[in-house]
Amino acid sequence: MLKNIVSAKQFDKATIEHILETADQVRSKNYDPNALSGKIMATLFYEPSTRTRLSFESSMLRLGGGVISTESAAEFSSAAKGETLEDTIRVVNAFSDVIVLRHFSAGASEIAQRYSRVPIVNAGDGNGEHPTQALLDLYTIFSKFSKRDITIAMVGDLLNGRTIHSLSVFLALYPKIKLVYVSPEALAIPKTLRSHLKSKGIKFKETLDLNVALKTADVIYQTRIQKERFKNETDYVKFKGLYIIDKNSLKQLKKTSIIMHPLPRINEITTDVDKDPRAVYFQQVQNGLYIRMSVLLYLFDKTSKKTR
Amino acid sequence: MLKNIVSAKQFDKATIEHILETADQVRSKNYDPNALSGKIMATLFYEPSTRTRLSFESSMLRLGGGVISTESAAEFSSAAKGETLEDTIRVVNAFSDVIVLRHFSAGASEIAQRYSRVPIVNAGDGNGEHPTQALLDLYTIFSKFSKRDITIAMVGDLLNGRTIHSLSVFLALYPKIKLVYVSPEALAIPKTLRSHLKSKGIKFKETLDLNVALKTADVIYQTRIQKERFKNETDYVKFKGLYIIDKNSLKQLKKTSIIMHPLPRINEITTDVDKDPRAVYFQQVQNGLYIRMSVLLYLFDKTSKKTR
Amino acid sequence: MLKNIVSAKQFDKATIEHILETADQVRSKNYDPNALSGKIMATLFYEPSTRTRLSFESSMLRLGGGVISTESAAEFSSAAKGETLEDTIRVVNAFSDVIVLRHFSAGASEIAQRYSRVPIVNAGDGNGEHPTQALLDLYTIFSKFSKRDITIAMVGDLLNGRTIHSLSVFLALYPKIKLVYVSPEALAIPKTLRSHLKSKGIKFKETLDLNVALKTADVIYQTRIQKERFKNETDYVKFKGLYIIDKNSLKQLKKTSIIMHPLPRINEITTDVDKDPRAVYFQQVQNGLYIRMSVLLYLFDKTSKKTR
Repeated sequence: MLKNIVSAKQFDKATIEHILETADQVRSKNYDPNALSGKIMATLFYEPSTRTRLSFESSMLRLGGGVISTESAAEFSSAAKGETLEDTIRVVNAFSDVIVLRHFSAGASEIAQRYSRVPIVNAGDGNGEHPTQALLDLYTIFSKFSKRDITIAMVGDLLNGRTIHSLSVFLALYPKIKLVYVSPEALAIPKTLRSHLKSKGIKFKETLDLNVALKTADVIYQTRIQKERFKNETDYVKFKGLYIIDKNSLKQLKKTSIIMHPLPRINEITTDVDKDPRAVYFQQVQNGLYIRMSVLLYLFDKTSKKTR
Repeated sequence: MLKNIVSAKQFDKATIEHILETADQVRSKNYDPNALSGKIMATLFYEPSTRTRLSFESSMLRLGGGVISTESAAEFSSAAKGETLEDTIRVVNAFSDVIVLRHFSAGASEIAQRYSRVPIVNAGDGNGEHPTQALLDLYTIFSKFSKRDITIAMVGDLLNGRTIHSLSVFLALYPKIKLVYVSPEALAIPKTLRSHLKSKGIKFKETLDLNVALKTADVIYQTRIQKERFKNETDYVKFKGLYIIDKNSLKQLKKTSIIMHPLPRINEITTDVDKDPRAVYFQQVQNGLYIRMSVLLYLFDKTSKKTR
Repeated sequence: MLKNIVSAKQFDKATIEHILETADQVRSKNYDPNALSGKIMATLFYEPSTRTRLSFESSMLRLGGGVISTESAAEFSSAAKGETLEDTIRVVNAFSDVIVLRHFSAGASEIAQRYSRVPIVNAGDGNGEHPTQALLDLYTIFSKFSKRDITIAMVGDLLNGRTIHSLSVFLALYPKIKLVYVSPEALAIPKTLRSHLKSKGIKFKETLDLNVALKTADVIYQTRIQKERFKNETDYVKFKGLYIIDKNSLKQLKKTSIIMHPLPRINEITTDVDKDPRAVYFQQVQNGLYIRMSVLLYLFDKTSKKTR
């Protein structure tokens, strides 16, 4: 039983399966809309992320809980009045039953959980982790491919994309899954992930060529090249246009494959792809709600006992 | 049955009457405070408008619904990460049952509704429309003058005031109502409204002279000259002081007339007018709550069947 | 029966005792979680204070009420569109059943209450007052020392600290309590407080020496030297380091004494003090929730009749 949701590395297979099954129940409206009545979630966002915040807040409200929220916790930050994250967490403990923390520094949630009586949910910490995003990605994949023996290609800036890192850690628990990483050399997966995969005995391919992936993968996980990661505008522009999925790409794709994206997207998937049934990125967002409701039920020990 | 509330032009008389009657019921506490229990409203404000946002949020809470909110959706805007409004709407659809959209661009709500599964309520789109403001204005007028054969004078910057535009469209459905537009020539009503009124066969007067209106009108609808509309500070200052309603103005006004204003006001109605029973601008705000509750009940098909 | 909570000076002993007893009931879970069901609180913050806002909002939610909120009411301010506070209050009256007001100007809440039909709670007005903070401080002290014949030392910038001012006003109602003010001369308590204490016949000591206080006081109320109060960086730095409570200070302190702080703290209490049982500053935050729930119950006349 996890007290906090801080890192993908905390999870074993049984816990993942339990959360995914609970998400299935939520999706089929099989849950108590007052399950968390009387509970209060604090969303503490040190950097803005409206989409993630609204997803968590909607999840809490749908379960009957209350929400207190700050869009910009800047005032709390040491930059403003000099208070430490430790003190802030202890203060917010007085007002809430669970804290959803978004922070600009990797490791912030790990620190926060040490000082918190109430559960901490990491909603993204710098270039660290974003475990609930990875859970919803996993849920989207396994909802489609129950056999879990598929090929998954991740595309784009694999060096900086924390979604990629957390999802890869989850996938490493399923040895029949084949991983393909598609990126320019400069944006290949980081050493830490590389050695984690090795330690788990996971084999993976790396390629520069999106077309290879398009033809063979069951899942194409496209990501945005994030401008803010590049010091050099020229580099950004070069990489930005490197991997585009458009209507032509669809011709190479298997009929049973799916195209995923954590959103927001800019131009890396063109809008003429949206109506293709293989494009499931908006379904991912919807699954995010189910997963976050499931995670909240889990943290308050309100999941159905049958699924354990 | 309207699915979205985007423009005053969508409404026929029956729909207006139905919403006003429902507002009457709400005003007399004749509604179910749990009517929208389990429903979630997303208030998506691309430009701040605390007053409008709080009005909608209070309406939703009073009906038992939940609210997720963003004071500044800037992060969502193409300016920030490059996501389109279309994608944003599809994302927020996953979290909410109705979206209240405030946007700096005219036409934004019209675009939004094309991509939304859930109802869109236009809470102001640039210099476009603001239909719920116009509905509350209409409700305020008709609560006072049930015969609907009155003279209504609108005063100020009639070119840029979207409230004026939406309200005029509603009033054009009632041919016994006489319209008087009071403005300097440079700020007269726009061509589009002019031709809309013509197409409906509505006659209206235009004048530079507030005093004419004060003596004859049943409703004086005063508006703020909005500084942000003028490139030229001199022009703003000139127009700003042009039409002031003060205690002296009241002497010219009929005993049965009312003075309205969409608020906020600066100096265009002096505070010594506030206590006069003909000053109803704070009542307008209160009516805004009733109208927005009514609109929400309507969109979720929870109005009393008797009133249809 | 107070209609508004604007100043510590409004309170008599009976009202204080009633609110503290109600806080005791809240602490022991002896309250109706739906006591304020159907009521809406507006938190109107003209300057940000996430901690105070979240404390009030959590209190309201725990009593079953709803919350509408603005983190930055700047748009409402005369600076933005030119609306007066008076008009804003009348507008927000339409949406809410109680208004919690944080404002940058001393006296703002006093003005607000004159124009409000619904109760106003002052959540800090410039260098004026912060009565609910003082109530929670009092509650923390009296929870520990029921005899109310103790010595209380307040330390730091006593000139600018509004917490100090409000708490001193409350303590002046209890003549057996001995007050010790520890500060550099330049930051001694203001004249207004000095004459208020005199008028009540309250004696107090003033000293530059923290060590005197540490040895004799039952309560050490440490405060942050607020950088924003100083025009001169050098002064700030000098005063900032003047009174530090660290592990060595603890040795001088009586076993039964307590150390308080309104938080946030920077370096004026070192973190190695936190685990000492005499450090109660995080308990203060928790008490803030009980006190604010108690204040809300009081304003809506929902306190237990037995405690009156």
